[in-house]
Parts: sequence; structure tokens; C-alpha cells
Amino acid sequence: MIRVGVAGASGYSGAELLRYLCRHPHVELGVLAAGTQQGRRLAESFPQFRGILERPLEEADWRRLAAESDVVFLALPHGLSMDAAPELLEGGARVVDLGADFRLRDPQLYRDTYGEEHRAPALLDEAVYGLVEARREQIRETRLVASPGCYPTAAVLPLLPVLPLVEGDEVRVVVDAKSGVSGAGRGASLGTHFSEVNENLRPYKIGAHRHAPEMEQALHSVRPGTRVFFSPHLVPMTRGLLATCYLVGDRLPGRREVESALRAAYAEEPFVRLLDGDDLPETKATYGSNFCDVAVRVDEARGCVVLLAAIDNLGKGAAGQAVQSMNVLCDLEETTGLLGAPLYP
Amino acid sequence: MIRVGVAGASGYSGAELLRYLCRHPHVELGVLAAGTQQGRRLAESFPQFRGILERPLEEADWRRLAAESDVVFLALPHGLSMDAAPELLEGGARVVDLGADFRLRDPQLYRDTYGEEHRAPALLDEAVYGLVEARREQIRETRLVASPGCYPTAAVLPLLPVLPLVEGDEVRVVVDAKSGVSGAGRGASLGTHFSEVNENLRPYKIGAHRHAPEMEQALHSVRPGTRVFFSPHLVPMTRGLLATCYLVGDRLPGRREVESALRAAYAEEPFVRLLDGDDLPETKATYGSNFCDVAVRVDEARGCVVLLAAIDNLGKGAAGQAVQSMNVLCDLEETTGLLGAPLYP
Amino acid sequence: MIRVGVAGASGYSGAELLRYLCRHPHVELGVLAAGTQQGRRLAESFPQFRGILERPLEEADWRRLAAESDVVFLALPHGLSMDAAPELLEGGARVVDLGADFRLRDPQLYRDTYGEEHRAPALLDEAVYGLVEARREQIRETRLVASPGCYPTAAVLPLLPVLPLVEGDEVRVVVDAKSGVSGAGRGASLGTHFSEVNENLRPYKIGAHRHAPEMEQALHSVRPGTRVFFSPHLVPMTRGLLATCYLVGDRLPGRREVESALRAAYAEEPFVRLLDGDDLPETKATYGSNFCDVAVRVDEARGCVVLLAAIDNLGKGAAGQAVQSMNVLCDLEETTGLLGAPLYP
Amino acid sequence: MIRVGVAGASGYSGAELLRYLCRHPHVELGVLAAGTQQGRRLAESFPQFRGILERPLEEADWRRLAAESDVVFLALPHGLSMDAAPELLEGGARVVDLGADFRLRDPQLYRDTYGEEHRAPALLDEAVYGLVEARREQIRETRLVASPGCYPTAAVLPLLPVLPLVEGDEVRVVVDAKSGVSGAGRGASLGTHFSEVNENLRPYKIGAHRHAPEMEQALHSVRPGTRVFFSPHLVPMTRGLLATCYLVGDRLPGRREVESALRAAYAEEPFVRLLDGDDLPETKATYGSNFCDVAVRVDEARGCVVLLAAIDNLGKGAAGQAVQSMNVLCDLEETTGLLGAPLYP
Repeated sequence: MIRVGVAGASGYSGAELLRYLCRHPHVELGVLAAGTQQGRRLAESFPQFRGILERPLEEADWRRLAAESDVVFLALPHGLSMDAAPELLEGGARVVDLGADFRLRDPQLYRDTYGEEHRAPALLDEAVYGLVEARREQIRETRLVASPGCYPTAAVLPLLPVLPLVEGDEVRVVVDAKSGVSGAGRGASLGTHFSEVNENLRPYKIGAHRHAPEMEQALHSVRPGTRVFFSPHLVPMTRGLLATCYLVGDRLPGRREVESALRAAYAEEPFVRLLDGDDLPETKATYGSNFCDVAVRVDEARGCVVLLAAIDNLGKGAAGQAVQSMNVLCDLEETTGLLGAPLYP
Repeated sequence: MIRVGVAGASGYSGAELLRYLCRHPHVELGVLAAGTQQGRRLAESFPQFRGILERPLEEADWRRLAAESDVVFLALPHGLSMDAAPELLEGGARVVDLGADFRLRDPQLYRDTYGEEHRAPALLDEAVYGLVEARREQIRETRLVASPGCYPTAAVLPLLPVLPLVEGDEVRVVVDAKSGVSGAGRGASLGTHFSEVNENLRPYKIGAHRHAPEMEQALHSVRPGTRVFFSPHLVPMTRGLLATCYLVGDRLPGRREVESALRAAYAEEPFVRLLDGDDLPETKATYGSNFCDVAVRVDEARGCVVLLAAIDNLGKGAAGQAVQSMNVLCDLEETTGLLGAPLYP
Repeated sequence: MIRVGVAGASGYSGAELLRYLCRHPHVELGVLAAGTQQGRRLAESFPQFRGILERPLEEADWRRLAAESDVVFLALPHGLSMDAAPELLEGGARVVDLGADFRLRDPQLYRDTYGEEHRAPALLDEAVYGLVEARREQIRETRLVASPGCYPTAAVLPLLPVLPLVEGDEVRVVVDAKSGVSGAGRGASLGTHFSEVNENLRPYKIGAHRHAPEMEQALHSVRPGTRVFFSPHLVPMTRGLLATCYLVGDRLPGRREVESALRAAYAEEPFVRLLDGDDLPETKATYGSNFCDVAVRVDEARGCVVLLAAIDNLGKGAAGQAVQSMNVLCDLEETTGLLGAPLYP
Repeated sequence: MIRVGVAGASGYSGAELLRYLCRHPHVELGVLAAGTQQGRRLAESFPQFRGILERPLEEADWRRLAAESDVVFLALPHGLSMDAAPELLEGGARVVDLGADFRLRDPQLYRDTYGEEHRAPALLDEAVYGLVEARREQIRETRLVASPGCYPTAAVLPLLPVLPLVEGDEVRVVVDAKSGVSGAGRGASLGTHFSEVNENLRPYKIGAHRHAPEMEQALHSVRPGTRVFFSPHLVPMTRGLLATCYLVGDRLPGRREVESALRAAYAEEPFVRLLDGDDLPETKATYGSNFCDVAVRVDEARGCVVLLAAIDNLGKGAAGQAVQSMNVLCDLEETTGLLGAPLYP
């Protein structure tokens, strides 16, 4: 059994992690740490766990977490993992970080993006970006996984195999993404108030969201110089994220070529589902799961290739993908604890 | 392995059954029959099953279903099961019917309620009402389970242990219930149109819903003469059902007495969760699960005992409970394939 | 023109008031005071007012408000109006209070219900409960209107004409009410977080809500001794409130008798719509309006009379009703500024 | 008074027209025709009109409609207006068509887009595209207004003043639009079923929607050769439409230049609201109104200009805009009956 600790158990990603972990056959759950609600039982904070996981939420004691865990998941607001990870690694635990602290390799880019100095820059090189479909071998070898953001997961997965097909020097990508509200976390604010979100569709941080540099970095691995313009939108739903990714230009690949590249990359992947024919991804088809559904449309007359990908932002976009990384990290069958049909309707 | 067939696989209860069954360790899925969409693949009708259950939807051939199945689930519109069940039983299969055909024991009450003669009245005596917490032993012995309706499940479970505590000759119960839209099935109508349901709260069939006689019949087993006034309401959500059940009168039990009776009945039940203190059930805490959360409030000054129960109408209210019955019927551990935390948020 | 000031313009009731007032032909809007967001423009707080009402939100200066207003609306959290109203009245303004401070006539009941001493008890006798259909003449004569709460409005309107028909000494009423989230105000909290409310149905304060004493007081005017058990539920929608009110007992009036009483009371009322035949109220039919839709069902065999009423909690349940009171107070045609069809879908 | 007839009164656009028209001070409502539900009263079909507009729905008799109306609104499924309009015009009525039949000027493009021959091609030249901000003078002179589609309204309004600023021969535009469900009409289908739409985000007809040629035609008036790639998405809300429009390329104007062009075009327009600073349009700020909120973002480093526009798809996207056209057509003040703040929350 793998002893697992979770820090950030009182947030949405933390709770979703626990939903996966408490039915994982090779996991023994240890400390559940939380920044808020310490001392309460988990089920007082999240009523779904009544009778299922009757555990206290404890203070995050990194030394103890390291000592009692083989793997520690960090589901914390950004800026906290870079303090915790060094201690956890030193204590002998491996770390899967769901936050942003170790995703960007360049400390200066981190500072420009998150507005503070990185306090563990030495680990940036060591951390492996946990997009399993693209980095499986590196994840197997690392101690520290930087699990991707929800938006980059949905945008990068379909773009990775396709970008190399684009001719010319410059590649411009527009990512127009739409996310459910749980992506914003459990903190109460006017922006997450039901009456403000419901019956509303709201763009935010157009061209200025912190996930754009993360997307560009990931895409540069296959196509240096790619420029991503990223537009996130808040949708009146709890879960679900759709990325509609546009390649615009003169020298784009045709539909068959794109589909071949996607098939070559993902036909054997257990969590990427390539849609055929007229099907298009819809978020509900991935609800509560680790799947990513992908489709493509090409309009040669208008010079446009569109890649669409749907995920559950808390599943493949956060907790599911993190568990997938843990499975790889621990030499388990990659799909362990992650299968089962999405919830629909 | 138990060979299982499903008729009604293109509806919501059928799809939810398949979600449970496809991860059930002792089930081998056989024929998936559907009244509509025959010839299509399941995943064309329900996109969540892409890559998970790639099976065709077939015509319902009862003889073949009986021959190839140990257990057949019927998730059909009312009036169809009473034709199918006799053939299935004769063919040697056991039957779990999610529909209404075998719930009422009295053929005349059936006719008064559903507007047609019952065509298999001989089976009404044999059928066992599949409220597992109340009929576990009878289910073990039967060939035919009549799985309860979603509203009766939520109302009867909390009322059963409490009604015997009420003094006097007459017991009047008001059940004010609120359900998500999936309870109305997958058929498209103005009444299920998103734009009509969203941002709307709608009572319907007040005092005239077909689940009222089913509730009264179930409650008469512990308290003959109980009269139930039932008011269903449609709530702008997909899943979830809350029953707020009122006992009104002069000679009602006190809160401790009620809580004791509930604990005596349900403390050991795996799927009934009794809430303590200030907690009240909310539907989301049962989302995608087979749990029923129950709480009680008593106002002695005003002569009112209130029992509240929340379920997922497609889970404990339909597919989950039916699988629970199958587990009992087949001498499996009752919780097999049904555990796992609800989806929240 | 009537000079009108509004205190509480940064809340939902305040904003809805302004929506009505800014198209009211006899109103000249003066000071808009707000407890938060002072110094911002109204349209920064509420984007719907862009280009329509470009005004600053100011500090609440009661003396200035009184001097510059004929009528002041108070849309404040409870406990603030009892400090403001005396100053406003002294300064010569008339006051329509949307809060709870002047609804209960008995200072002790106020203390028991709201947990603090009333600081303007002398005004409790003078204040008129602003349920216009029941107190039109008194409103015409007063300086201070205590506009009813949203739940009491929907419950009391249908019950008032019916309670006198019930025989016997004791009358027990169960009010099971369901409200949209805007009724909880604009404050951000976990309880109003989209991801917690959406796809959720949640009872709260069962038998312990502050609107129950208000209902009992209003009903005692026609039927002393009436006991109300009140169960509020939070529905995943922004606006809309439905009260399902049960009279349970042996000596209840029949359907015709109840319908006659309702017609006698409301046939000429401009904002109460009595539904015929099979129609039942639904909240969406009153969306954005001052209407209250009412229907009745009687089950003589089960000893139950049900009265159902739907309103927009921000309309007839708050701002609309307050404007209706102002029209009466100022000798205007009662419907001025309040007509127009509800928004549907 | 202007005598007005409406055909299509049982649909959502028709009902929204009636909401505007029944409070319009210069309109006298005549025949309400409906393809379905004839013989029922309007309020039986749409409960919001109870007590407000108690009128029967009648068969569409074009001769009678023409005789009894100065202006007839057609809110019909496409393909019906081209039969009705000639008769109405011949009968002396002016026509505002909310459908698609007269929007495309080229009969061959109509056939390619809608799959049938146009049966009134002679009227295509005469019809004026009812985007009032762009065609005010032509509307004043015409007998036949082709009111724009909801998507083209939101996309074309912000693009019109900006396209002329783009250098180079080719202009490529990506319009990624998100709409509420009411845009799909009132017809019941699996695609509009609450349980399929709720908690779901669904792209559809990517690159293949009929509104794309309409957008291109409208934009060619200011910039021939513009190519529009159009991606519509269905959002789980009833009303509201946001168009996120991307210009991608090397020779794009800067933010100031774009803002100047928008101000020059729209600063004096009563229904276009240009947002400043950090504000972005959100659909709820236009709920139930005829407003269109517009903002712009420019990323020079990534070669991207983004124009965002939010409308109510039934307001500025359908009924509101049609009434605006009628006001122009009839020499009334353009804003008559259309002002009032949007409903928020």
C-alpha cells in the first residue's frame, strides 16, 4: 500500500482527490491537512464524506507529512507549495503538486506571472510537468510532479501533436476556453456568488491569465515560438471545461493530416477519447472523470484549424490527472482508481 | 459472474444502471435492449460511455434476454414490465423492475392509479417491494423485485420507523417533495425544456401524483390507515430529491423518541446516513450515490414532527437501489459496486 | 414629482428598487446611500445601470436624506432601520422600510426573534405592515411602512382569506417554502457560493426561521391562535419564491368555499392573480414583476387544504411591494411603474 | 396609434415581442397569430401574460393581418416568411421579419445556406438589414426589415467600425460565440432537454452555422473579402449571448485606434454601451434589455485584437431590435418602449 497525505483537503481539488483516493485499491490515506477548518472533521466541511471518510482536518506539519507518507499531494493556493515541497522531499516523500509553483521552469517567468520571487528555484529544473500523455517517462523518474493547470491541460493536449504540422515561422494560436465555477476554488466572493454567476456568461482576464505562459511553455517543447492568446470565460455550471483552440493562417494542415496526428498520439491513451465524424466534445460527457474528449474541424477556405477538448476541470484538469501521475510515479497500472463512467445526466 | 441484461438502456435510469454495473466486480453485462435508438451504439446515445461500454442497443427479445441472463433489469415506462416479466421469469431469469407495474399489490388500485387493467395480476403477490432496508429477507427469496419509486423511497424510509410512535387512530402525513428534472425521464417535452425549467420552481400534480398510493401502501405495513397528502415540485436541477415529511397532530412523539427510533432502524444500514445536531440533508451530498441522508426536527409547541430525507433520484431513487436489490438477490455483499463518495461539488 | 432617497443601494433589494424607480413617472431620484462601496458609481457595483443611472453611491446621512426626500426607502440589514427611521421621520420624510425592524409589533417578540433590544419601540405601534392588499387604508395614513418579508408575503396572502373558514379552536398551518438565492442578499459566503448551491436543494432553519413569528402575527389578525410551522428551502435559482401552505385537520372548508373566499378577497386586486382549473403557480411566471399567483387544492378524504403562491422574492417579496406601498402612501395610482409582463423564459 | 400584428406569438421571440409591445405607448396590438396552439389563449401558452394580455392565439390569415395592421412582425421558423411577406406587403402592411428569409441578399447564397430555393427573390433587394445602428436611414424608407440573427448582431456590431482599420488584403476573423438555450426556440428536443443542457457546455455546428454567411455579408459592406470562421456554443443558461471576436494577423490596429473607432461609431448610440478600463461585458448586465455591451482588448505582441459583445439574445438579438426597427420605420423616438434597466441579478 502507498501511504498518501493530502494538504489542502478543505478545497475543491483536495476533496476531489479524496474522492478518487478513498476508492483507490493501493492507497492508504494518512494525514489530511487543511489551511482552514482545522480541527473539524472532513465530513463537517464536505458532507459527501459522511460515513465514508470520517477523519479530522489537521494542521499542515510538513515534517510529519513527509515521515508518514510515500506520496504527498499539495492542493494549495499558489505560493505555498514552494515552501512545503523542499521539506517534503528532504523528508523522503515524493510530491505531486496541483498548484502553480513548479509548472514554469524559468524563475523570472514565474516572477513576472505570479508577482513574487520563487523561493525554491533549484527545484524548477527537477520538477516534471505532469501532463502524463506527454511526459510519462520523466514522471516515472522524478520526485516532484508539477500537475498542469486545468486550462493548459485542455488546450495543450490537442495542440501538442498538431503544432508540428503547421508550416512557416510563426504559429499563432487563440485559445478560447470556457470553465465551470469550481475552477475558481471554494473561496466565497462576489465573483462566485450564485446570483451573479447564474444566468450569466462572463469573460475574464482576456489576454492576461496566468495560464497563458504555462501553455506557451508546454507548446514550445514541440514548436518553439508559438504565441498563445488566451481568453477564459466563466460559465454558469459547477464542473466542466472546454477549450476551443484556433490555428489561423495560410499554411495549415488539412483535416486528415490533423486527425492522423491525433490518432498517432492518442489512439492508445486510456484517458484521451478522439471523437469521430460529426461528434463534438461536450463537458458533461466527462463529468466526474479523468477523460479528455477531443475533436477537430478544419476550414481550408477560411484558413482555420479548430481543436476542441472537453474535460472535468476537477478531474483531468486537477485531481484525476494528479492521481494518474501518482500511479505512474509508483509503478502502478496507470488507470488504477480512475476508471468508471462519467456521471450523465 | 452474474450475467445481467438491461431493458431500457436508452433512458436515464437505464444509463445510470449501466454506470453502476460496468464497474461491478461480479457482473457480466449481456444484452442492452432499448425501445428507441435500436441499432445505435450505446455511446452514440450516451456520450459518457465512449471507450467504456462500446455496445449496440438491441431490440428487447424477452426469450433471449431470459436465456442469456441470470438477472434482468427493467427500466421501462410503466405498462411494459407486466408483459415482459412473466416471459422473463418463465425463461428462468430473475427480474428487478425499476418501473411501477409491480409496486402496488392490489390490481384494482393499480387500475385506479394507472388507468389500465393489470395484465399479470398473479405476479403482484409474488413481487417483493425492493426497499431493501425494510424487505431484505423477502428480497433474498424472490424472483421478482419491484423497485420503489424515487419519491416513495425518500418519504417512506424516514417515516417507517417513526409512524408507530404516533398515538391515536388517525395519522395524517404531508409529504412535500422536490425533485430534479431527470426524474421525469429523457423524453423531450415543453415541461423538460431547459428554458422553461431553469430559473423556475414548479409544483405539479399536487395531491394527485401516482406515487401517493405507493407511499400509503408501504406505510400501511407499519401503521394501517395512514393518509398521505403528497405534493411534488420540479426543481431546476438535474439530479437530487428531497422529501420534507410532516406529521401534524396532538399526540406526536418527541425529538429524542424519534431519533431513537431512527437509530434503532438505521444505525447499521450502509446506505442510510442519520444526521446529527444542526445538520440537515442536502441533495448534493448524495449526488451520484446510493445514500439516503435523514434528519428530524420536532416542534412540540406547534404540534409538528418533520422528517427530511435527501437522495439522488437516479441513485437510491432508481438505479442504485435496484443494484442493491440485485446484490441481496444474488447473495453478494450488499454494498458491492455501490460505494464511493458522492460527487461534490 | 416625489423626491425619493434610497439607503442600501448596493444590495439586491436596493438595486431592484432602483430598477422600478428609475422608470417611475412620478419619482425624482435623490441620494443613493450604501453601506459598502461608497464613492463608487452605482454602475460600478451593478453593471445593468451603465448609461441608465450614472450616480455615485454615498454615505448614509439621515439628516440630508430626510431633508432632500419626500420618501426614503430603507433596504438595510436588520437592526439598522430602527436607528435611521426616527431621524428620517423627525426630518419630515416618510419611510418605507424593506427590513425587519418594524414588522413585529411586540418589542419582546422582536428581542426573542432578532436577539437584541428594539431601540425605537415607540414606532412599533405607528408602523403599518405593508401588505397592501390587507392594509391599504392604514398605509395611506402612516408615515412608516414596514414592508413584509418575502416568505410572509407569499404565505400570508393566500392564507388570510381562508383561515376564517376553518372551524374549531386550533388552526395548524405548515408553510413549506422554496426560495431562490437572491433572497439571501449579496453577501458572499460558502452558503451562496455557486458551486455549493447549483445542483443542490437545501432546507435550512427548519422550524426556526425569523419569518415564522411574522407570519403568525399577520395571521392572528384574522384568526387568533393560528400556529405556523415554517420550513424554508434554498433552490438553485436566482429569483423566485413558492410557498406551499398546508392546512391539516378535520374541519376544513371545501374547494369551492376556499375559491370563493379567495375571489372575494382578490378578484379586483391588480397584483394577485387567481389561477383556475388545473393551473398551478410557477415562479417564472412572476419573474421580474410584482405579481403573486395563487392556486388552491383540497383533498377532503385526506383532510388537507393546500394553498400555493408564487412571487418574485425581489419583486412582490421586496422592492415591488415597497413601491406599491409608496404609491398608496403618496396617493398615486397604485400600479404606477409596476406594470409590464414578467420576463419569460 | 400604430396597429401591430404578430405572427409566431407562441414562440420565444414572439412572446418577447409582446412583452415589449404591450407596454409600448404608441402600439395597439391586433391579431396574435400562431402556428401551434391556435385557439388557446396567449396566457395558456405563456403564463406571464395572465391578467395582462388575455387574447386568443389565432390562425395566420395574411390578408386579415395586412388589413388590420400597419406593421406586422414575423417571428417564424425560416422558410415561412418568404411566403407571408409578399401578401402582407401587397395588403399594405409594413413587415419586420425576425426570421432568416430576407437577410441574405443573394438568392443562391440563400439556397446554399438554407437548402431550398428562395420563393420571393424579388424582395431580397428591397429588404433592409435591420441592424439599426448601421442602417438607420435605409430602414426609415423601407417596407420590409430583415431583422438580424442573434449571433450576427453581437459579432457585427463591434466588428463594423474596426475592420476598416486592418491593413493588408486579407482579413480573417474568428467569432467564438456562446449563447443561452432560448436562442434555439421553444421546440422540445433532446438538445434542449434540461438534463442534457444543465451542467454542460456544448459546441455545435463549428464552422458550419447558418449565421456565418450572414456575418460575412454584413462585414463585406465595410471590408470586402473578410472571412469569418464562426463557432457557436450552447451555454447552460436561458438568455444571454456573448461574442468573442478575434482578429489575428500582423498588421492590426492598436488599442487606442480601435477604441477611437468604436467611440466614433457608437458614443451617441442609445443601445450600445462601450465599456472602459478593465470592464468586460457579461451577459447578465443586458438581461431582458435591448443593450449591447462592447469592450476591446489588444495584444500587440501576439498579434491579436479581441472584440467582445454581450446581448440578450431575445432582446437586442431578436425582439428588442425588431421593435427598435419598428420605431425607426414609424418615425417614433427610437428608444420608445425599450428603455428600463436590465434585470440583475
